[in-house]
Amino acid sequence: MIVAMQEGASAAQVEHVMERLVEDGFKVHRTTGATQTILAGVGRPDSFDVTEYEVLDGVAEAYRISSPYKLAGRSFAPEGTVVRFANGVTVGGEKIAIMAGPCAVESREQLFASAAVVKAAGAQFLRGGAFKPRSSPYSFQGMGLDGLKLLREAGDQTGLLIITEVMEIAQINALLPYVDCYQVGARNMQNFNLLRELGQVRKPVLLKRGPAATVEELLLSSEYILSGGNYDVMLCERGIKTFETYTRNTMDISAIPVVKKLSHLPILGDPSHGCGRRDLVPAMARAAVAAGADGLIVEVHPNPEKAVSDGAQTLYPEQFEKLMDELRAIAPALRRRLAG
Amino acid sequence: MIVAMQEGASAAQVEHVMERLVEDGFKVHRTTGATQTILAGVGRPDSFDVTEYEVLDGVAEAYRISSPYKLAGRSFAPEGTVVRFANGVTVGGEKIAIMAGPCAVESREQLFASAAVVKAAGAQFLRGGAFKPRSSPYSFQGMGLDGLKLLREAGDQTGLLIITEVMEIAQINALLPYVDCYQVGARNMQNFNLLRELGQVRKPVLLKRGPAATVEELLLSSEYILSGGNYDVMLCERGIKTFETYTRNTMDISAIPVVKKLSHLPILGDPSHGCGRRDLVPAMARAAVAAGADGLIVEVHPNPEKAVSDGAQTLYPEQFEKLMDELRAIAPALRRRLAG
Amino acid sequence: MIVAMQEGASAAQVEHVMERLVEDGFKVHRTTGATQTILAGVGRPDSFDVTEYEVLDGVAEAYRISSPYKLAGRSFAPEGTVVRFANGVTVGGEKIAIMAGPCAVESREQLFASAAVVKAAGAQFLRGGAFKPRSSPYSFQGMGLDGLKLLREAGDQTGLLIITEVMEIAQINALLPYVDCYQVGARNMQNFNLLRELGQVRKPVLLKRGPAATVEELLLSSEYILSGGNYDVMLCERGIKTFETYTRNTMDISAIPVVKKLSHLPILGDPSHGCGRRDLVPAMARAAVAAGADGLIVEVHPNPEKAVSDGAQTLYPEQFEKLMDELRAIAPALRRRLAG
Amino acid sequence: MIVAMQEGASAAQVEHVMERLVEDGFKVHRTTGATQTILAGVGRPDSFDVTEYEVLDGVAEAYRISSPYKLAGRSFAPEGTVVRFANGVTVGGEKIAIMAGPCAVESREQLFASAAVVKAAGAQFLRGGAFKPRSSPYSFQGMGLDGLKLLREAGDQTGLLIITEVMEIAQINALLPYVDCYQVGARNMQNFNLLRELGQVRKPVLLKRGPAATVEELLLSSEYILSGGNYDVMLCERGIKTFETYTRNTMDISAIPVVKKLSHLPILGDPSHGCGRRDLVPAMARAAVAAGADGLIVEVHPNPEKAVSDGAQTLYPEQFEKLMDELRAIAPALRRRLAG
Repeated sequence: MIVAMQEGASAAQVEHVMERLVEDGFKVHRTTGATQTILAGVGRPDSFDVTEYEVLDGVAEAYRISSPYKLAGRSFAPEGTVVRFANGVTVGGEKIAIMAGPCAVESREQLFASAAVVKAAGAQFLRGGAFKPRSSPYSFQGMGLDGLKLLREAGDQTGLLIITEVMEIAQINALLPYVDCYQVGARNMQNFNLLRELGQVRKPVLLKRGPAATVEELLLSSEYILSGGNYDVMLCERGIKTFETYTRNTMDISAIPVVKKLSHLPILGDPSHGCGRRDLVPAMARAAVAAGADGLIVEVHPNPEKAVSDGAQTLYPEQFEKLMDELRAIAPALRRRLAG
Repeated sequence: MIVAMQEGASAAQVEHVMERLVEDGFKVHRTTGATQTILAGVGRPDSFDVTEYEVLDGVAEAYRISSPYKLAGRSFAPEGTVVRFANGVTVGGEKIAIMAGPCAVESREQLFASAAVVKAAGAQFLRGGAFKPRSSPYSFQGMGLDGLKLLREAGDQTGLLIITEVMEIAQINALLPYVDCYQVGARNMQNFNLLRELGQVRKPVLLKRGPAATVEELLLSSEYILSGGNYDVMLCERGIKTFETYTRNTMDISAIPVVKKLSHLPILGDPSHGCGRRDLVPAMARAAVAAGADGLIVEVHPNPEKAVSDGAQTLYPEQFEKLMDELRAIAPALRRRLAG
Repeated sequence: MIVAMQEGASAAQVEHVMERLVEDGFKVHRTTGATQTILAGVGRPDSFDVTEYEVLDGVAEAYRISSPYKLAGRSFAPEGTVVRFANGVTVGGEKIAIMAGPCAVESREQLFASAAVVKAAGAQFLRGGAFKPRSSPYSFQGMGLDGLKLLREAGDQTGLLIITEVMEIAQINALLPYVDCYQVGARNMQNFNLLRELGQVRKPVLLKRGPAATVEELLLSSEYILSGGNYDVMLCERGIKTFETYTRNTMDISAIPVVKKLSHLPILGDPSHGCGRRDLVPAMARAAVAAGADGLIVEVHPNPEKAVSDGAQTLYPEQFEKLMDELRAIAPALRRRLAG
Repeated sequence: MIVAMQEGASAAQVEHVMERLVEDGFKVHRTTGATQTILAGVGRPDSFDVTEYEVLDGVAEAYRISSPYKLAGRSFAPEGTVVRFANGVTVGGEKIAIMAGPCAVESREQLFASAAVVKAAGAQFLRGGAFKPRSSPYSFQGMGLDGLKLLREAGDQTGLLIITEVMEIAQINALLPYVDCYQVGARNMQNFNLLRELGQVRKPVLLKRGPAATVEELLLSSEYILSGGNYDVMLCERGIKTFETYTRNTMDISAIPVVKKLSHLPILGDPSHGCGRRDLVPAMARAAVAAGADGLIVEVHPNPEKAVSDGAQTLYPEQFEKLMDELRAIAPALRRRLAG
């Protein structure tokens, strides 16, 4: 913690800031320049707010030096976390993992057809929503428990791992018997109660970046899960809100190398939500892998035009197959390969 | 719904789009220009996705014509909604309502001192968080039920109405006996399950705009509450995420007249979260009222430097009193006056 | 300048950063904590780049402590700058200045009618573009020199001061005999060559914030003019690009108190470009004044529907008159009054 | 052009909009639904403003149907533009072109060392600034004409093509004898006078996207050059301003496939400005190529720590060589290859 006083700050103002730092649990080192006094707070109190220093009289600027997350930081596991699944699939190591499937579970036929497509093309995970958050109350809201059962059955039959979204605390236990991995959607990235409860579960969690969240805020959210003792957390870049309107979101591909640098957690890309249009999905999927993503989560449907939700961003089976071939060609440039 | 075909789109492509429109429940009017065919889908099906048309072959652009919300739209109640509270306080009419108090309930002393300050200065509502969403798991998380009881007691003693945040479905019933108004925080603006449940309650709800949400998305979220039969919804602008870093958020003052134009619901301003620094709060509070806000929600604390959360954006009592005087002077310019 | 080393940074890495600081002209103070070394560079070299420290091996974070601007900073003129014009009009003091007129000069009739309207309503400046930057090459590009002559004539006849946009260096001298104040448009906020030349002129300059510029970048741009010896600089908030699409830009009203805090330069608001729709302009104009703006620049036209450019954001005469009355009622709440 | 009237719009309001459409040069087709009237303006007048319809009484929404650019649109040259240079190098075809070199020309030694590095690694263009736009007036501003001469000499000696930034109209002729390609910087993307003059030159232009510009605005700016008869225009994505602060800008990789879809012009990526930190540049360079970029422009310096500008985002020679090897491995996945 560094506090730079304004030029001409009074002795009393400097004193007040020093007292405040001590109260917050810092040791204070003072540097007096010709024009400006700088106070360094040394130590790592659990919780303090930089802005509270910024608004004190006589303060020019204040900076948090230590990162606000601890367990999510690279230095906690410098070699990088590898999340391991029951059937030997890993996320975070040399192999690039692919999660694919429809936006929503709609019917047995649709789900099993999807599973067959993604399995044949080489994916390791089947994705599909049983509970759907929709921005309009007049849209389809998901099959619920029936959808979960279909997912489990499709997983067991194909050997694909199952990942689906958990939207509230009450669903954690409901999903437990059916899924191999929980997915926390972008809108819930700062639903801290939900995250804290997922920290108590012993099943991997894929945490998506919120559309208004910085990478630092994403890492801070992951800290809620990690601090509960659940270390199997994977992050996912899925687009942020910007002024560009042609795409649904702007997929921040640079978040991938940034997470790699700041954290040990695996980072995946979601090109479907990232751009919102299937004609752009393959390009963004390739970009994510080329930038170092540990995996992808992609929407695929046997007939996207008939999909009940997110059809516009969902790939046709043949697009997905072609994309998988392209990814297989790109991965070796990064000394990696596709799983499966 | 309008679909503009590309120049040179084939007859089959036009046909396919027309079939799709009919399937979605539209009647189709076709306009054939020299270079371009335009298809107008007339009617109002409950649910359809514009982007799905955009990605069809041969389509240049597609536009939703009707607004996606219905009950929140101005035309549903052209004269504007006035939310009425038990003690005769109203929000949405001529009088400007003021909600004020600490970020979090910390203790009996702190809360009652806060209540005395905001009551004396002329506020109608006491705000204060009993359950706190915090971006770090290492920060104070709120007093919970004990905080609720203190809020109710302070409300009964001073005659102030009580507003506090509801963070998840399980808290709706817990809060019911203690509060006069539910507040939905920005991070929960698209927690649709929570909104749907609040539609079943018969108590007013203040819905805050999410930091990445457009005004249209805010109105769409309010539709979840309205469509459950709870018409006592108030909206609140509290800042959006932009590239400007000096302020915590950028308070979108223009959202206030935009909501007034598009919707009949009252709109309040939250200058505390809007800028995140107490030295800017009075200016932004005045701006919100001058732009036509129906009220404000402001953080005030007897000693902001000792506040356990959000202290940097919390006003000192004397700042709040001065602000209230300024607002009393501004309101008549808009042919309004402060309540109380 | 503060550099926080990573935990576990090597002695050689610390040494390298210290050498770099000395090369850049700093004296170095070193604070060695239990886990982390912090280096404070004391002094004020003219030019250095914080990011270059951030990417050095072993560095966790680096912060510039001193602000990058000098002449624009509040401490350079703590009492605030007042720009004085020939006829006694001032901008930056107690009185709020109003600049109004059409987007573009279109004809003698249109301009003189506009001048009459804005004069009668109480403005001090007539605005109007003679050279127009247009985003499409197929749009009207301005009347050029003929427009300038009309502006001067209208100014002389009504006693209004003339402000118009300068788009490139070659226009500085061309405009000199005709204008009382140069306006630098948002798209030229970082046209540093133009700014540097305007520093050599002895006539006031209104510098608009670019749509992607932070307040700090705006102040840094003003430094180009100030450092040439032209101290009569006024700043202007006119909206930034955000994800909100209902408005053309998002007018960042908080920039007004932020500039007041960081700088001594006057700050105006441009609600016309700020929101881009005339139905929102009055609300945003009121908000700017309530937030502390030293003036406004507003588009007014005798018949906005016939305006050749920006008609959608241009006020009708009667709207402008009503707005002026509202502003006269709001100003006293801030212990100010409208000029004229 | 489509105008959707509000429910309950009066006959006079509909009539007024129809007249306005006719005045603007449209033929009008009217669709009367049960609740809403829709007016389609057919035809392509050169210039009209959609927002002016939005603010008319009785109008719910208005949409421009035809794209505002003509020569830049895909349909103008569906097979895609290939820009051809004197020595046989092409940009826009199967081969991916690489432009590399220092941010600024600093000295003969520095420039020739840079040229040797980028030539050896396989680039086709040498980049380097002779005139530098700097956000602080206290920073190095470039070598000017001497820098140009060094660039030409380095180009002639190595066979590399020379690209450098043109900052104002007066520089166009000054640069002409020395450069093979003009570069328009992000800050000048909407300097329409400069663009118009570049339309009169017969030398290729690389036009960078502004940090607040949508892809549509970028295409509209290119139209200024194309409409002057200079068809050798290349576009470049170099990052947009967003709320994420870890990177200098957010490089919008999706702009690459979007430009490919909407336009026939080649699109390059600038990962150096795109992220602003050399530790992220290789990942973003790979992502750009994987997303379909026709080339890259990258900052490389023999000793980035000694660079006078932009050192933090400049690659070391060995980083650049490694990156070129990775790109050679990725290109075939897209059925392309690196030039040279």
